[in-house]
Amino acid sequence: MRELNLADLDDMALGATLLGAGGGGDPYIGRLMAVQAIETYGAVQIVEPSELDPDGLVVTVAGIGAPTVLIEKPPAGPEFVGAALALAKYLGKEPVAIMPIEVGGLNTLIPLAAAAEMGLPVIDADSMRRAFPQIEMTTFTLAGITASPMSMVDINGNVVIISTTTNQVAEKLARALMIEMGMGAGISLYSMSVAEVAKHGIQGSMSYCVDLGRKLSAVQRGEHGAFDKFLDFAEGKRVFSGKIIDLDRRTTAGFARGTVVIEHLEDPTRIMRIEIQNEFLMAFEDGKPIITTPDLICILDHENAGPITTETLAFGQRVDVVGLPCAPEWHQPGMLELVGPRVFGYDAEYRSIKGRNA
Amino acid sequence: MRELNLADLDDMALGATLLGAGGGGDPYIGRLMAVQAIETYGAVQIVEPSELDPDGLVVTVAGIGAPTVLIEKPPAGPEFVGAALALAKYLGKEPVAIMPIEVGGLNTLIPLAAAAEMGLPVIDADSMRRAFPQIEMTTFTLAGITASPMSMVDINGNVVIISTTTNQVAEKLARALMIEMGMGAGISLYSMSVAEVAKHGIQGSMSYCVDLGRKLSAVQRGEHGAFDKFLDFAEGKRVFSGKIIDLDRRTTAGFARGTVVIEHLEDPTRIMRIEIQNEFLMAFEDGKPIITTPDLICILDHENAGPITTETLAFGQRVDVVGLPCAPEWHQPGMLELVGPRVFGYDAEYRSIKGRNA
Repeated sequence: MRELNLADLDDMALGATLLGAGGGGDPYIGRLMAVQAIETYGAVQIVEPSELDPDGLVVTVAGIGAPTVLIEKPPAGPEFVGAALALAKYLGKEPVAIMPIEVGGLNTLIPLAAAAEMGLPVIDADSMRRAFPQIEMTTFTLAGITASPMSMVDINGNVVIISTTTNQVAEKLARALMIEMGMGAGISLYSMSVAEVAKHGIQGSMSYCVDLGRKLSAVQRGEHGAFDKFLDFAEGKRVFSGKIIDLDRRTTAGFARGTVVIEHLEDPTRIMRIEIQNEFLMAFEDGKPIITTPDLICILDHENAGPITTETLAFGQRVDVVGLPCAPEWHQPGMLELVGPRVFGYDAEYRSIKGRNA
Repeated sequence: MRELNLADLDDMALGATLLGAGGGGDPYIGRLMAVQAIETYGAVQIVEPSELDPDGLVVTVAGIGAPTVLIEKPPAGPEFVGAALALAKYLGKEPVAIMPIEVGGLNTLIPLAAAAEMGLPVIDADSMRRAFPQIEMTTFTLAGITASPMSMVDINGNVVIISTTTNQVAEKLARALMIEMGMGAGISLYSMSVAEVAKHGIQGSMSYCVDLGRKLSAVQRGEHGAFDKFLDFAEGKRVFSGKIIDLDRRTTAGFARGTVVIEHLEDPTRIMRIEIQNEFLMAFEDGKPIITTPDLICILDHENAGPITTETLAFGQRVDVVGLPCAPEWHQPGMLELVGPRVFGYDAEYRSIKGRNA
């Protein structure tokens, strides 16, 4: 067990922006919420599953919405604790800990704010260690753990409890409700025992996020050799350095979709195309897939190594495209059918970034 | 208390078609479901609130969907009992009776089928005594009774419990879910005590429906003076006799919408235009509103007095347009803000059909 301090939160927000893979909502909004909640309710403890009663109840807390809307309408706050309380009430059991569903983007930090207010620790684990656009895209789904019963609460206090036969249906119903709830809502789902978290969660993902942010922060401070150390730590690769020459973004059916086209800085005949569905999902060069989901595509500012999200992309930006391998827990039967390229409509094979030459 | 017999069901289905005001889904599908349930589980008792414990729990059962979809995909059945059981489970209390939310269209008979299977009586009351396209359009809403907690169950066994701050939000969320649930689902809502039904329901609406069907049946058999007796019973008016010369129907945002244009049989310069949103809502002649919601617009076949629904409308049909006054319980503060013409987007005043010259 260890207490989060403010420096941790800064690194976590930076790491979460990177793990957001361009999406997942702005972690700095979540950082503000977490700081405010910690100042009001006291510090949050980060714990390992082994520190808790194996039979204790754990619930995840997250926001659901399109990132493009979040910018204009940040989450209010009560909907997240509201969601956790509604689910606990429905289950008739008090949770012993809160857990993020995705460590990547805004949903990394929202659980901290909710946990502070509820006086509960946060488990150092999640089910993505990146952001994904749909709630069934978790290692929990691969383990057969149901997302439902799932609660959904909006800022006006409307509460919905969803119990579905599959996590895919839970996503479909939640997405439709989210649109009617003003394009954003708090959700609490994947309730399970501490023992199940230990078995099926991605362990240490909160700590990983803080460490990753710290490494990137060293790059941003211009420390010697920091970029290589950052890539070494994450086992990542810089695959492209270029200038953004085309950009198309649109919000459809509750998702932010788009395409970004990058021309190589040194060889303008080389073109990289990156496809967006809330997150950067596929990077192609000359029609050939270079980074493929579930591996992470990160776009960094070429000058200051600041992560660029789908909303902060702009014409003319000079950027580095970095591929990070997904958490090793993803590599199990069913991964490609749940989060592989074809799930998102791309006719391409998954090709791991790990162990490849840059 | 009285037992429903098969003749009652025939008259009820005919009366429910009329009270459907062109929409509400085909009551003959509901009649089949009711007959089948009664043959399997035994007869259904129709009761007055005074015959039950005033503190007993009553829940309504209904289907939600666009009528145009119902034709191609009739409801399966388990979703209705499923909805009632899910709500009872959520409330932690057993209901003493089932009640229709709307006596008009398919939802008149669905509660009978559910009640037979559950071994419960059906209360001779409802909250519309006609069909309306949205679930908040009830006398219960006028009385401040909340539609939620509301259950929603699809044929695959997905269950949603909705608790909203207003009945309008319940409608919005349920409509969005319905689309994702394959354009149809069972719902159970407006749970209340028997005493509340006695105070705020439209009393005797099931019996009224049977009686109305019986009067129309006499017209269809060609009994002398039957049409006048039918109009006298319902305090209705025949306002137009004509031929359908134009017809536009479309399904948008979970509703069946459209317009039907009728040319007068004797004076082709007279044109009636009827506007549809699941039901016939407004009848205009020369731009002047003739029958206005919440009064009922019924279109009858000119030759055989068969009620014509929005789905069975056809070019060239010779029809009578009949206006029936809405149930007297509607006439209370808030009616026009809930079910008046402007709610549906028509810039016209409500003008009661009652007491007007034909």
